[in-house]
Amino acid sequence: MNGAQALIRTLVGAGVDVCFANPGTSEMHFVAALDDVPEMRGVLTLFEGVATGAADGYARMAGRPAATLLHLGPGMGNGLANLHNARRGKAPLLNVVGDHARSHKRLDAPLESDIDAVAGTVSTWVRRSLSPADVAADAAEAVAAIATGGIATLILPADVSWEDGAEVADAQPVRPVPHVAPSVVDDVAAVLRDGEDVVLFLGGDVMTADGQLAAAQVAAGTGARLMSETFAARSARGAGLPDLHRLPYPPEMAMAALAGTKHLVLAGATAPVHFFGYPGTPGQPVPEDCTVHVLSRPGEDGVAALRALAQAVAPDAEPEVAEFERPELPTGELTPRAMAAVVGALLPENAIVVDEALTSGVGLTEMTSTGPRHDWLALTGGAIGDGLPMALGAAVACPDRPVIGIQADGSAMYTISALWSYAREQADITTIICDNGSYAILEHELEKVGAASDGERARKLLDLGGPGLDFVSIAQGMGVPATRATTAEELAEQLQKALAEPGPHLIDAVLR
Amino acid sequence: MNGAQALIRTLVGAGVDVCFANPGTSEMHFVAALDDVPEMRGVLTLFEGVATGAADGYARMAGRPAATLLHLGPGMGNGLANLHNARRGKAPLLNVVGDHARSHKRLDAPLESDIDAVAGTVSTWVRRSLSPADVAADAAEAVAAIATGGIATLILPADVSWEDGAEVADAQPVRPVPHVAPSVVDDVAAVLRDGEDVVLFLGGDVMTADGQLAAAQVAAGTGARLMSETFAARSARGAGLPDLHRLPYPPEMAMAALAGTKHLVLAGATAPVHFFGYPGTPGQPVPEDCTVHVLSRPGEDGVAALRALAQAVAPDAEPEVAEFERPELPTGELTPRAMAAVVGALLPENAIVVDEALTSGVGLTEMTSTGPRHDWLALTGGAIGDGLPMALGAAVACPDRPVIGIQADGSAMYTISALWSYAREQADITTIICDNGSYAILEHELEKVGAASDGERARKLLDLGGPGLDFVSIAQGMGVPATRATTAEELAEQLQKALAEPGPHLIDAVLR
Repeated sequence: MNGAQALIRTLVGAGVDVCFANPGTSEMHFVAALDDVPEMRGVLTLFEGVATGAADGYARMAGRPAATLLHLGPGMGNGLANLHNARRGKAPLLNVVGDHARSHKRLDAPLESDIDAVAGTVSTWVRRSLSPADVAADAAEAVAAIATGGIATLILPADVSWEDGAEVADAQPVRPVPHVAPSVVDDVAAVLRDGEDVVLFLGGDVMTADGQLAAAQVAAGTGARLMSETFAARSARGAGLPDLHRLPYPPEMAMAALAGTKHLVLAGATAPVHFFGYPGTPGQPVPEDCTVHVLSRPGEDGVAALRALAQAVAPDAEPEVAEFERPELPTGELTPRAMAAVVGALLPENAIVVDEALTSGVGLTEMTSTGPRHDWLALTGGAIGDGLPMALGAAVACPDRPVIGIQADGSAMYTISALWSYAREQADITTIICDNGSYAILEHELEKVGAASDGERARKLLDLGGPGLDFVSIAQGMGVPATRATTAEELAEQLQKALAEPGPHLIDAVLR
Repeated sequence: MNGAQALIRTLVGAGVDVCFANPGTSEMHFVAALDDVPEMRGVLTLFEGVATGAADGYARMAGRPAATLLHLGPGMGNGLANLHNARRGKAPLLNVVGDHARSHKRLDAPLESDIDAVAGTVSTWVRRSLSPADVAADAAEAVAAIATGGIATLILPADVSWEDGAEVADAQPVRPVPHVAPSVVDDVAAVLRDGEDVVLFLGGDVMTADGQLAAAQVAAGTGARLMSETFAARSARGAGLPDLHRLPYPPEMAMAALAGTKHLVLAGATAPVHFFGYPGTPGQPVPEDCTVHVLSRPGEDGVAALRALAQAVAPDAEPEVAEFERPELPTGELTPRAMAAVVGALLPENAIVVDEALTSGVGLTEMTSTGPRHDWLALTGGAIGDGLPMALGAAVACPDRPVIGIQADGSAMYTISALWSYAREQADITTIICDNGSYAILEHELEKVGAASDGERARKLLDLGGPGLDFVSIAQGMGVPATRATTAEELAEQLQKALAEPGPHLIDAVLR
């Protein structure tokens, strides 16, 4: 058995059975070995950033890692931005990065570069397999290392793939999720009993239905306010769950949302900081006289801690949850709010919403929060271009659930070839492009930073209008049926139709 | 004057007056400052890999650096693959990478990552500007550091951009190009006089017309064979120049080309190695009993050394140069060779050819080598996705010269949004997509590595045909007029028309 075969069999044995791949010459034995191990599903992407973003979305929905197959250092570089997002969202993800054969490494061939250094910036675990005898054990260790989140990168020399002498390795025992000590729960319980102006701030692992319901029970019994981090990796949402408000993105709104808070209790989240620094604005929204308490850190069993907390402070309280309510279908101008209302009115049961709407997302969370139950995937690391790939990964992880991508236009272009993989896999994804013809977020930012000038030449660097991007034509060119909506009615009709048909669809929503 | 203004003015003063930009929030003051310094031309790209690839193409043609403007670590990551190509081609290039404000850095905001580590893998010079008082001097030093090639990366905290107290810095003196010592020339002259089976192996800086003519004079006077590296950054070509054969890409052909060589004399090139290692094949094509001699290293004044060598060994020899001859326009099936013949038959005077044809490039160099004079830009680092961006940079550098991009289909998708920038800039670029519906190079490689299996599932990872990519639709969606050619006649007609009109055009050449 060669190294590639042992590697793939070991991965399958450890529960990693999807590989988002963008292979090159150095990965050919891995590709060939796919035929020997039919349990491993290879999904071809045309760009590594699609592979890594898809693995991110897959991990968020499947709760276990997919593999990526990347081609040397440049392939790792192409995948880096979405690996950054996955790292920030603590998604488990395994990169297999092909490299030159060991004997070729010293020759400084044209594709030689420092893969290890690049991998190190996003990975919690990096290893270069040194022989066919090692590769399977390395892979088993990699999977175990990321069981509770994190990125493992296995660098695979071509000859380690092709040489014989490898054997399959058993899956390694997974490290248990650390529990939160009772004394920590007691300390937080004391804060909730005595403290005024307490905010229970949720994120990460506790954004499940169970976690939110336990938190809402605490809130109901103590008067604490609930709030969530701005961009959670995955949030359960909809009727029957608390109508959880997210900390707003703009610094001034975030500061207003936390104004007067005396105690901030973190569950699964870290203390919030603004995305960017601005002249004359503090870097984080927590008031200076507010004390921050940690109930559970990311990676700890925060849901159990919240349940224990609820038992301690509010054993009989009933969580306040949202009644089912949808917006009505709007008519007329297709504003961002009208788009949000259409999505809210038509959101199917059990959908997965991938949100990279950015500035066009105004009203989107509000209009969907009390509708049918769904999961919401947000851009965790701020590196735009994760939305289209994440939707692919989510659809591969959950083939029976409809996926809806709400996608800003400028960001869509970073990884636009994801659409081809949608068509290839016939993934049930409906993409709504928020087509405002500009990097609108940057136009806001240009004002916000107080830039002295916002003249013609600066504006031109933020404007996508010359020429306009025709997303219908682009999507059709990659095999995805596409339509254009310029009114709320058109969007509603097209969205209904897209959701009723299996397979991918794209709607170019031209916003006013 | 704030840091951004001083930085841009300093760059302009040092001769860097084009910036390929993909800005984000942390770069807003840089964008705003563009309005204050009209001498700096900002060219918007929709993806950082387009910005870095364009800067690579610009540098090759202009002979001086452009700047890129990248957004934090993920932006640097997106640009990394084409920075790898630029590094391998020794193009001078200055990255300005925006980062968080200094006070924001410690907060580990979502976009925080280790920019310095990633930058270090491709840069010969990396610095983080620590205050507005430093940034202009840092920029001047960066430009001087890359005068003879190499990548400089200046990391620019947002507050260093926006704070006042900066002053423009003078351009720094440029380090002279090192000359080759006369004794080195003498040693090589002795080899040429006495040695048998000498190959004079050219690359890098000596691929200019002057360098090649001097080398051809040496060859004419000594009987040495001329050969060039496989993928030179920029080669002068056409009638009146030597018909210089490139070392073939496939290992077995490269070894055959150098078989029997007793002395390999390097001028501007490094000793060749195969792109990849293969089972049972040596890693480089130079015969074991061949002695390698260095006339000039990359970055040294190799043209002067070749002239001195010609004076020493062949003062009266006449270089053998190609007579003007073009292929006839072919008819019928559109094979790769027919495509090459069409390009050869219609190549305009003084064109710039950007070659990322890969497997579809069969016959392309042969069919163009004796036509009108032109420059040829090749993929130096093997990281596919440099072709479309390089053509943009070449067109910006040389607005009066026609640019022709010969572009493999799979590779085109890595940086496809370059087409939008073509339309935006109305760049005079004709792109021919070599549309074979597959990663053909990988199908060859799958056989070449001797992979045990090449069954259905492996093949599926190398096939771009399900669904087919419609490049006409994709290009039109980005504002580039596009047509499809399925016969040699159609390609000829469409290419003639595209070359006759200014602005960008794309031809989807469906190859058999």
